[in-house]
Amino acid sequence: MILAIGKRRTGHEEAHTVIHGIVPIIAACLYLLMATGQGSILLPVLPDSAATRIFYYARYIDWTFTTPLLLMGLAYTSMPSGLRRGGAILGMMLADVMMIATALAFGASVVEWVKWTWFIVSCVAFLGVYYVMWVALLEEAGRERGEVRSVYVRNAAILSVLWFLYPVILGLGTDGAGVLSSTTSVALIAIIDLVSKVAYGLMSTVSTGKLVDQDLAGERPIPASLRRAA
Amino acid sequence: MILAIGKRRTGHEEAHTVIHGIVPIIAACLYLLMATGQGSILLPVLPDSAATRIFYYARYIDWTFTTPLLLMGLAYTSMPSGLRRGGAILGMMLADVMMIATALAFGASVVEWVKWTWFIVSCVAFLGVYYVMWVALLEEAGRERGEVRSVYVRNAAILSVLWFLYPVILGLGTDGAGVLSSTTSVALIAIIDLVSKVAYGLMSTVSTGKLVDQDLAGERPIPASLRRAA
Amino acid sequence: MILAIGKRRTGHEEAHTVIHGIVPIIAACLYLLMATGQGSILLPVLPDSAATRIFYYARYIDWTFTTPLLLMGLAYTSMPSGLRRGGAILGMMLADVMMIATALAFGASVVEWVKWTWFIVSCVAFLGVYYVMWVALLEEAGRERGEVRSVYVRNAAILSVLWFLYPVILGLGTDGAGVLSSTTSVALIAIIDLVSKVAYGLMSTVSTGKLVDQDLAGERPIPASLRRAA
Repeated sequence: MILAIGKRRTGHEEAHTVIHGIVPIIAACLYLLMATGQGSILLPVLPDSAATRIFYYARYIDWTFTTPLLLMGLAYTSMPSGLRRGGAILGMMLADVMMIATALAFGASVVEWVKWTWFIVSCVAFLGVYYVMWVALLEEAGRERGEVRSVYVRNAAILSVLWFLYPVILGLGTDGAGVLSSTTSVALIAIIDLVSKVAYGLMSTVSTGKLVDQDLAGERPIPASLRRAA
Repeated sequence: MILAIGKRRTGHEEAHTVIHGIVPIIAACLYLLMATGQGSILLPVLPDSAATRIFYYARYIDWTFTTPLLLMGLAYTSMPSGLRRGGAILGMMLADVMMIATALAFGASVVEWVKWTWFIVSCVAFLGVYYVMWVALLEEAGRERGEVRSVYVRNAAILSVLWFLYPVILGLGTDGAGVLSSTTSVALIAIIDLVSKVAYGLMSTVSTGKLVDQDLAGERPIPASLRRAA
Repeated sequence: MILAIGKRRTGHEEAHTVIHGIVPIIAACLYLLMATGQGSILLPVLPDSAATRIFYYARYIDWTFTTPLLLMGLAYTSMPSGLRRGGAILGMMLADVMMIATALAFGASVVEWVKWTWFIVSCVAFLGVYYVMWVALLEEAGRERGEVRSVYVRNAAILSVLWFLYPVILGLGTDGAGVLSSTTSVALIAIIDLVSKVAYGLMSTVSTGKLVDQDLAGERPIPASLRRAA
């Protein structure tokens, strides 16, 4: 449990630990919801068709909360000396929520062209998230010391690749083109969810811990306002 | 596209640009939703009546996100030297969300007296928004330099008048008294949405740009914490 | 009306007044919703059973907004010299929202073991709220002057006891074990809602007012950034 492993020596580290500790718990709750047969409905494959597909809308509730938190964690990683660029972070969050909301519209739509219009809108919002991640936040990370920048680049790269797989799987799965079977797409998404939430969270927490170790070892003074009194 | 026009020379200007850039995008998404026939349901005009009216609930999803963002933009306009009065801003946001939520209850209600009770509650919440806009924020704007105050007063006046038209149209439209036809009220709301989101956003972004021009030209020092490193 | 009684001499007092002023208004709106017969649905007592129970889901909308606000008020009470520990407060909010969301899943579930699984998950989230309340916030309150700490301990103790009654009543009521009748559990919850929102809010506002009186009387300087210009 990340909440137990993560240390809270600075306010910054505390926020980071809390975020990565709660993300898997939220995901676990929504998986429980789906496992108990709640959180999904049957939708027709095409308008007027008798064939149905199971649409797991609970995923989108999960993502609505976990993806902004993961991005928040990334923002903390890029700026350990204090959050800046409130506007860019706000923009990233809003783009992220739009990406999830329009992905929900994609999954819930039945008419073919409406469905794919939403898919494109969602991908454009995703590009907005990438843009803030790789322009504004990268710029800020570059103004911190070197280790911060390299941890940020590694984490942002991992998230970028993992998140890129979601639209691919959703687009090929039963909610989209129907190339993948329902079981395959559910299994693939479960695996990416595990990697991007649990494994990534653990890794990110450990590397933040190391950076704080260096800070506290006096390599670089941190502002008193960020350091919790001993 | 406001996102492309708006400059980001200060953190403050960036937040303002992002807000006014994303508001029309959110509105466009919800209009797309309504255009594709999603985002609305048929409700009976009166309980037990066979006549129905189309209730576009997607509007309220739009407004839930866009109106707090517009108010946030207004708060930034009133306090370019740094956000103060967190409590007042929080109160304005909560009053705004209550205004939208009770307006949704008004639109979704079928029983006559219940519907108009919600209408009154929503109007009272609207008065709360006006109160913060014209008392707390005006007070803060008065403590900035003169140009800030006059831009704030102009923007707040425009929003106040435009937003006042919404309850009038909703009250007279098919969701309310039924004086206006469905087509007329949809068209009128589309026009106000365009003016209050796109035209207002452009104007607000341009005038913020001018104020920042003056600041950067050295007429008045801005705190280092607000200025992005060049 | 707490909004009228509460003073706003400091930005901090303003935020506190706004929070406790709006909480009862939100609760009143949702009670109005339930009183007009909206905000509830009939659910079967057991799967395949013909007997039904009224499930008031509007409660959970109320709680989703009011409980985070009450916790926010408590956080302000613990740290009058400025909010610290953003991570801990974020964690408390998220635990609180998870507690409410899983309580909704508990109330909405029909299958027996699923229902009680959600009950346990919700209680665990509640423990998380208690943890932040009695460890992180208590620690911060201990770093303020003595009166702050004692007001904090009293308020946190009252909320802890009152909130503890909710799961007990919900667990025994018609949504849970069915020991209490529907009327009894509705009446009990209405009473606790009144005490925890109105009476507690009034008390908390009055004691914050007293603390600010002492501050302004010069017993302790408050940072200029917190004091509103006269």
